[in-house]
Amino acid sequence: MDKVRLASVGLGRWAQVLARGAQRGEVIELVSCFSRSEERRATFAAEFGIPRTPSTYQELLADPEIEGVVITTPNDTHKADIVQAADAGLAVYVEKPIAHTLEDAVEIANAVERAGVVLAVGHSARRLSGHRIMKRWIDEGLLGEVSLAEANFTTGAGLHLTPDTWRWYASGSPGGAFIQLGVHHADTLQYLLGPVRAVTAHARKLYTESEVPDAVMAILEFESGPLGYLGTGWASPGVFTMNLLGTEANLMYDVALTHWSESHLIDEHSSLSSQSHQEGERLAVELPTTDAFREQLEEFALAIRGRAQVEVGAAEAIQALAVVRAALESSNRAGTAVELREVIEQAGAGAAAGA
Amino acid sequence: MDKVRLASVGLGRWAQVLARGAQRGEVIELVSCFSRSEERRATFAAEFGIPRTPSTYQELLADPEIEGVVITTPNDTHKADIVQAADAGLAVYVEKPIAHTLEDAVEIANAVERAGVVLAVGHSARRLSGHRIMKRWIDEGLLGEVSLAEANFTTGAGLHLTPDTWRWYASGSPGGAFIQLGVHHADTLQYLLGPVRAVTAHARKLYTESEVPDAVMAILEFESGPLGYLGTGWASPGVFTMNLLGTEANLMYDVALTHWSESHLIDEHSSLSSQSHQEGERLAVELPTTDAFREQLEEFALAIRGRAQVEVGAAEAIQALAVVRAALESSNRAGTAVELREVIEQAGAGAAAGA
Repeated sequence: MDKVRLASVGLGRWAQVLARGAQRGEVIELVSCFSRSEERRATFAAEFGIPRTPSTYQELLADPEIEGVVITTPNDTHKADIVQAADAGLAVYVEKPIAHTLEDAVEIANAVERAGVVLAVGHSARRLSGHRIMKRWIDEGLLGEVSLAEANFTTGAGLHLTPDTWRWYASGSPGGAFIQLGVHHADTLQYLLGPVRAVTAHARKLYTESEVPDAVMAILEFESGPLGYLGTGWASPGVFTMNLLGTEANLMYDVALTHWSESHLIDEHSSLSSQSHQEGERLAVELPTTDAFREQLEEFALAIRGRAQVEVGAAEAIQALAVVRAALESSNRAGTAVELREVIEQAGAGAAAGA
Repeated sequence: MDKVRLASVGLGRWAQVLARGAQRGEVIELVSCFSRSEERRATFAAEFGIPRTPSTYQELLADPEIEGVVITTPNDTHKADIVQAADAGLAVYVEKPIAHTLEDAVEIANAVERAGVVLAVGHSARRLSGHRIMKRWIDEGLLGEVSLAEANFTTGAGLHLTPDTWRWYASGSPGGAFIQLGVHHADTLQYLLGPVRAVTAHARKLYTESEVPDAVMAILEFESGPLGYLGTGWASPGVFTMNLLGTEANLMYDVALTHWSESHLIDEHSSLSSQSHQEGERLAVELPTTDAFREQLEEFALAIRGRAQVEVGAAEAIQALAVVRAALESSNRAGTAVELREVIEQAGAGAAAGA
């Protein structure tokens, strides 16, 4: 098979991380790239050997060579960027979250369906080696029944935000740490335990000078019965943990954020341990080496050619974003549980009214 | 100093654990013991070399040799047991929680104050080596400002409860895992971060056959700003964790429940790690050997002789129990935040009306 020809759109740090992931494999060829900054276009194209650097997004989308775009623009421009690409008949990979509001997310889902193009959303965390093992242990009954799931994703990013980044603003990045980091766990927890029914949360802006929360805690009520805890911080050294407590065993996963942007190295610096009633103490579980960024981009590329199915599309991404939006709504209501159905239906009605 | 003469009341497993703790030191002499079961009295007295085994609690309380009682009876008999001891002029150590309801707790506090006797409540967990280090790091500013605190205490006990134990029943053990296990963390978290203002929680009875919840998650809003998570389970292999995330560093504490009843051994099987922004990875923090059960009982004994102050008395124990009661109330109100002030004032009014 000849390589699948993709274009990078939005050329910040994460575009580089994904380009490196794509170039670790033999499936994808980056043939074009776009940022509003001419300097960024030139630098990015030089670093990754990209032949074309169109000066407008429209020019990029009109290029008949390009089969799909890899979008890493700010959350609040995802909708415009995706709808244009879909209307041009191009497949879309977009970084998580799918959008900053559920209304935008529903409009994205509608546009992609209308155009009949592939949409993949970059919820890479569910592909981490330890999460795949958790899923297998659940499916095989090795955990028994899960009653508690606990997840935290924290970085110090909120301490260094400045007003020249979109992440500073509540309008573009509502929920701060929770939409940027927590949305990963919101996806992974539902991948592992099925849909969340309702969310109870509190958000605080404590130590960041930006407009957004740097401490958010949420309790998730899963339709299947268990309770989940999802904590995110933006004011501390980096933490990424996922613990599942089952009637037969526990699994505790501790992911090395020091290697977060190198998904081919992360497993060897992370740890997964299991604990049964009999043993009491924790035993190390081997983490096979994987490469989440490369895998998700190759899956997207192969899906364009009809040779793979996208694992995380609009439906899954909306479900993850709905946890975030329900959490923010719950925090506004002094912690009262907010049902996902409520925020999703509202968004659907809003999108329909706007269409 | 001659040894302080104490009596054990309620001779179950935990009375044994505490008696062993007392006998590891030279401060306490166990001179009497009482249980309604004659067989238990005889066995306990033989095991710990206790000279007297009165056949009624009244007889024990009338013994002029005895300076204080160590009560490990069921939660819902604490009030009656303590009030009688206080009225007899005896100092009281009682295992946590101080009582199963805040009304009982307030009546206990009033009785003890009226009688002018020492009351110590067995919130031993705050004395664990790692918690003492956390407190010191907070006081010395090494964590910076804490934004998130996460604690879990889980055991498999709920899977093995039978109707012949008081822990089976919602009347005597309301909240199940949360009042039995979580109340420790409710105390320790407030020891570390100051008073909780309000609690948001969900409780589930998932896999236990008893009447009480085996999965409870709560979000604590501290008056000082941070958010806390307190999770408890009663249906999984044992977990005891406490993580503090600060602006300068994190501390993660993992306590070996395999040695929970041997407080002189627990430190060497537990681990504490720190993490700064610079290092990224976690570094082991040395845990000095301590002996929480012995220390708290000796502090109690010395306080009777006016040579020590009790660290956890009625006020601290009521504050810990109030977190439990507010959590249960919040769960009944679909997660809406319940203020501690509300449940404490209600209990005070109830106790005053009953007096």
